[in-house]
Amino acid sequence: MAISIKILGSSSATPVFNRHHSAQYLTIEKEHFLVDCGEGTQMQMKHYGVKLLKINHIFISHLHGDHYLGLVGLISSMHLNGRTEKLHIYGPYGLIEIITIQFKYSDTCLNFQIQFHEIKPNIPEIIFENNDVTVSTIPLQHRIPCTGFLFKEKPKHKRINKEMIPEGILLQEIADLKKGLDLYDANGEITYKNEDLTLPARTHHSYAYCSDTIYDETIVPLIQNVDLLYHEATFGNDFEERARKTFHTTAAQAGTIAKLANVQKLIIGHFSSRYKILDSLLEEAKTNFDNTELALEGLTFTLGN
Amino acid sequence: MAISIKILGSSSATPVFNRHHSAQYLTIEKEHFLVDCGEGTQMQMKHYGVKLLKINHIFISHLHGDHYLGLVGLISSMHLNGRTEKLHIYGPYGLIEIITIQFKYSDTCLNFQIQFHEIKPNIPEIIFENNDVTVSTIPLQHRIPCTGFLFKEKPKHKRINKEMIPEGILLQEIADLKKGLDLYDANGEITYKNEDLTLPARTHHSYAYCSDTIYDETIVPLIQNVDLLYHEATFGNDFEERARKTFHTTAAQAGTIAKLANVQKLIIGHFSSRYKILDSLLEEAKTNFDNTELALEGLTFTLGN
Repeated sequence: MAISIKILGSSSATPVFNRHHSAQYLTIEKEHFLVDCGEGTQMQMKHYGVKLLKINHIFISHLHGDHYLGLVGLISSMHLNGRTEKLHIYGPYGLIEIITIQFKYSDTCLNFQIQFHEIKPNIPEIIFENNDVTVSTIPLQHRIPCTGFLFKEKPKHKRINKEMIPEGILLQEIADLKKGLDLYDANGEITYKNEDLTLPARTHHSYAYCSDTIYDETIVPLIQNVDLLYHEATFGNDFEERARKTFHTTAAQAGTIAKLANVQKLIIGHFSSRYKILDSLLEEAKTNFDNTELALEGLTFTLGN
Repeated sequence: MAISIKILGSSSATPVFNRHHSAQYLTIEKEHFLVDCGEGTQMQMKHYGVKLLKINHIFISHLHGDHYLGLVGLISSMHLNGRTEKLHIYGPYGLIEIITIQFKYSDTCLNFQIQFHEIKPNIPEIIFENNDVTVSTIPLQHRIPCTGFLFKEKPKHKRINKEMIPEGILLQEIADLKKGLDLYDANGEITYKNEDLTLPARTHHSYAYCSDTIYDETIVPLIQNVDLLYHEATFGNDFEERARKTFHTTAAQAGTIAKLANVQKLIIGHFSSRYKILDSLLEEAKTNFDNTELALEGLTFTLGN
């Protein structure tokens, strides 16, 4: 009944200071997602006790190595650990070719099927949906095709107030109450008002993952009012020009995006190897958006309970 | 004036117990070599203080992921760290295609040239040579084309005994002495006997790296009398049949190969995830060859001084 986001890595391209490349482990209701999969992600999963075989859906933002180079090793370990269930991978054009060629040369015939979903980089679209959640793309402006991902819980049903439920109530009536309907007798008279037998629905939450991108206000409508925004903040104010040239964002700019989108909370990551100590990045983001935290490895952020 | 071998990883396919995939860092005279490059090798290099940019030659034994998946990340970090010097990569057919396709999709134009040397898997041949060292292939029997590598220092010159050298000696005469020649005057008479002005040459050493392979005595002549042999020992006696089926070796069999080849010392690695504690593998190897050690991460083995 919550969204949980565990940070497995939040380093940018050169991994230093024992920081690892981008990867996040999400659980939403019964689903287990992996978002990006930099080199060493399978080791980070072991380190933090994340079960390899629970993951059925992997989302790759783009084909810079620090966001996907752990994928073939991860898939190999799933294979060696006896996986038989289909694995869904969502990523840009080219990713399945990269995976396929490597298993061709290693002469590996996987025990399970990979279903690849090619992402269109320029238009936001729903790429995954079940009863509880949708996952949509967020087109980002980077040096190569790149998308973020928006994870949204669907509106929940009202909850039955067990203490108030009369005896003999029918299953269909329970279903109607959850939908917010009143109950009627055979004559069409109200027997129970919905509000007397139910509790409000639990809040549904949303999480947006935005990495890598130049400062780009066009994403604001797509991430408006999310509960939690992860936004890259590769550089500080000292390298604002370099951020622009390399299609990255500064921490202060990430704060501005969070403010414009009216999000509840911001976490920043994709830290450049220039910054051993990250305090200055956090402070700069906070000048524009106070409720900011660093997306440090090992931290878990939870929405709902 | 020595061969130094630092173990960066010696896990087989599933990395567990904080063990990393195969990678070794060798220094021989002025050369810095990397042998295999499993996922996470660049992080292991950072961890153990190995300088990324010193490496000019990388040898990849075969295209199972646990032996090469760190390569693209490593090359990327070399690029980001400003490398301009040519990088030589020696590996099987297919490796350069795997590298090239990934840099194509990441739209990376490297600042330096990669010179790829395709290894013929079935015949031993010299693939690198300079004044001090040769590197030859050792054809191995595995599920896919696979070669080990033999690193041999060339015989050294005799050393000049500075205390005994007379004044006014010519550079050419020094060179002759190093080659073991006596010195003559203009009339063809011996002026100095070589043994009076020189010290014996330092010993030259050899190191053989054999991973992955089924138990295979045909490699014995190729690694005869080496000072140090690394041989895979994926399994113990309890999985001898599985070793055979998967084209791997048991620790006891690795000991037998070391004995047959009359090597000075054996180190074993490529440990299966079945073994958390490795003592039994070491003991089993020692039943056939006593001078055996585990090739544990972080250990450095030195030949000469």
